Amino acid sequence: MSRESLSEETINLHRAFRGKIEVASKVPVNTGTDLSLIYTPGVADICKAIADNPDEADELTSKGNMVAIVTDGTAVLGLGDIGPKAAMPVMEGKSLLFKKFAGIDAFPLCLDTQDPDEIVSIIKALAPTFSGVNLEDISAPRCFEIEERLKKELDIPVFHDDQHGTAIVVLAALINALKVVNKSRQNTKVVINGAGAAGIAISDLLLYAGFTDVTLVSLEGIVRKGASWMNPRQASMAEKTNLYGIEGGLDDVITGADIFIGVSAPGVLSKEQVQRMQADAIIFALANPVPEIYPEDALEAGAAVVGTGRSDYPNQINNLLAFPGIFKGALHSRVRDITIDMKVAAAEGIAKVVSDEELSPEYVIPSALDRTVAQTVADSIGQTVNKKEECLV
Amino acid sequence: MSRESLSEETINLHRAFRGKIEVASKVPVNTGTDLSLIYTPGVADICKAIADNPDEADELTSKGNMVAIVTDGTAVLGLGDIGPKAAMPVMEGKSLLFKKFAGIDAFPLCLDTQDPDEIVSIIKALAPTFSGVNLEDISAPRCFEIEERLKKELDIPVFHDDQHGTAIVVLAALINALKVVNKSRQNTKVVINGAGAAGIAISDLLLYAGFTDVTLVSLEGIVRKGASWMNPRQASMAEKTNLYGIEGGLDDVITGADIFIGVSAPGVLSKEQVQRMQADAIIFALANPVPEIYPEDALEAGAAVVGTGRSDYPNQINNLLAFPGIFKGALHSRVRDITIDMKVAAAEGIAKVVSDEELSPEYVIPSALDRTVAQTVADSIGQTVNKKEECLV
Repeated sequence: MSRESLSEETINLHRAFRGKIEVASKVPVNTGTDLSLIYTPGVADICKAIADNPDEADELTSKGNMVAIVTDGTAVLGLGDIGPKAAMPVMEGKSLLFKKFAGIDAFPLCLDTQDPDEIVSIIKALAPTFSGVNLEDISAPRCFEIEERLKKELDIPVFHDDQHGTAIVVLAALINALKVVNKSRQNTKVVINGAGAAGIAISDLLLYAGFTDVTLVSLEGIVRKGASWMNPRQASMAEKTNLYGIEGGLDDVITGADIFIGVSAPGVLSKEQVQRMQADAIIFALANPVPEIYPEDALEAGAAVVGTGRSDYPNQINNLLAFPGIFKGALHSRVRDITIDMKVAAAEGIAKVVSDEELSPEYVIPSALDRTVAQTVADSIGQTVNKKEECLV
Repeated sequence: MSRESLSEETINLHRAFRGKIEVASKVPVNTGTDLSLIYTPGVADICKAIADNPDEADELTSKGNMVAIVTDGTAVLGLGDIGPKAAMPVMEGKSLLFKKFAGIDAFPLCLDTQDPDEIVSIIKALAPTFSGVNLEDISAPRCFEIEERLKKELDIPVFHDDQHGTAIVVLAALINALKVVNKSRQNTKVVINGAGAAGIAISDLLLYAGFTDVTLVSLEGIVRKGASWMNPRQASMAEKTNLYGIEGGLDDVITGADIFIGVSAPGVLSKEQVQRMQADAIIFALANPVPEIYPEDALEAGAAVVGTGRSDYPNQINNLLAFPGIFKGALHSRVRDITIDMKVAAAEGIAKVVSDEELSPEYVIPSALDRTVAQTVADSIGQTVNKKEECLV
């Protein structure tokens, strides 16, 4: 479909249906008896059962399967700060993906405030309605503070998909790509271009998962101890990354790198720079729709494995592989928090959907439309929970 | 169905379905093309269209048909302050009624705060997601402050159903009951027992609609100028009601009354008190499930028209006759506020569903299950809007 006809069709679709989600009934609502069961007087017994035992809310109301998708509309797709009303189409789309891929009810809440204190207190007040919170498209560095505080103060799981969803899928793809090129996590040099929410989360997860040499590059320069322009999260990453304290920009660290991960801007990686990387380089160029380098150029310059965010090239790195299964596992296992061990387990779960026989430079990550992935990820989360419980016994 | 088997069946139903509502898709989500239309990359065009013209959010997202049902769980049914989690079954039930009777998507938000300032700021922050707010089961007097402030500060309609829904249906039933007994609004003495949210809203609406002699009675005594125990709303009603400044309780004002409206407690009106009312008395005994007086007793004591909140007696006074049509009309006509004129028009709309030929002491108000009422009410709201616009021309 051409860009123009896609645009026309998507506008027509949204206008015809007036958006994409509805609040529907799971139960019959036809007779007077139905009404007496779902509303007065019967419903009073359900209220009393929950008042007596609040945990019953998960079993007797929609709460148990309900996730809030919360945004303030400050960092939407490639569009930036377009505000809460204009962010809604993305959040509705996400809601449909939650339902389709994990059977989860997800309701979008687009907030007309950018104040982290207010966002935290709103979400805390809304917690009785939901069993999980998916933060979405909230700009850095506010997203770090909001997520950290909610994880501490709420007893339901909170997950900022732009950070952790991306990090999990990148790790999954790396696990398989390293098999293709026969390299190890310990002996590879990783350059991450883009030090916003996604770049920082990827660095964090890779270091936890056993990568040792990671360097983060932002528009302002390479993240390094003592740099004056860093936000607190970047400063914290400076302690663990950039082992040799290199100054400068992307061009100063790309030479000899094994892995390039771009969560930055179109066209910022040149063929010449790829040629300066190690043999059998892995390149995930995730800027969308125009990547940091096009796959054909990267391969021509000698890269062994290339992934992008696009569905029309091999190895699409897409959050859709992570968030439905993450929440399915978290809700099913009633976890209070999505831990970093669960994120690693989720990445391993996604990676293993690609069998050793199927594995190839063009297939290191399952298709975003593969309906089996979410259950595999959910199972991985469940096993992490069980393992933890065994350890505690 | 016996009370016990109803209880068992309602628990089984809620447990089997894990609550009653789901977030469902209005559009196809099957192929890769579907995904590119509802999510990336197509959805960016919808975001941009709304960023350029925020009013398009009503047409291109679910916002245009989405109402928030907001409670803090402090005044739920006859159960009182059972908290936000235990309130959810009622709110889900209400959501189903919105959908069934008006085609409106209504999402329940149960808030873990009772602070009016916080409730107001949460709802204001959530406004980009919704086109209307139904406040529900929030205790008096906080409900008055919350509703008043939201009506001033929001540009979408806000309606506290416990107040205004009840008041509208009572007025509708009175319009027809007065025809049955051939009395007029101006020459009847009205006693309202219960000076909480519903009682005050009923008084307000009746006075606006042309009733002149209204007396409000609370547990503390008759609402009257100078009484020390009144909250600000009761004090304000004292200026307009209790024309003769009577002190005491229900027993001191019931003699000679034409109309008794109970929004109070079981069994508080005796047969002897009904006998002291005017001939052809109208009695709406709305305490539920046990009314202020049972219909058979009221009729035996000489009442001409009796209504209750119960579905197993004639003349059920049920909010379900009002709120779906009120919001349907408000959303369709894009009103920013549900005015008192709209409430009167809604009551007249409900009343006229009962034709002069059908009208009888046992049928002054349509059945709560009558599917035609909501559209009639919505049309009445629409006509009020149009009339107002004509006046402004």
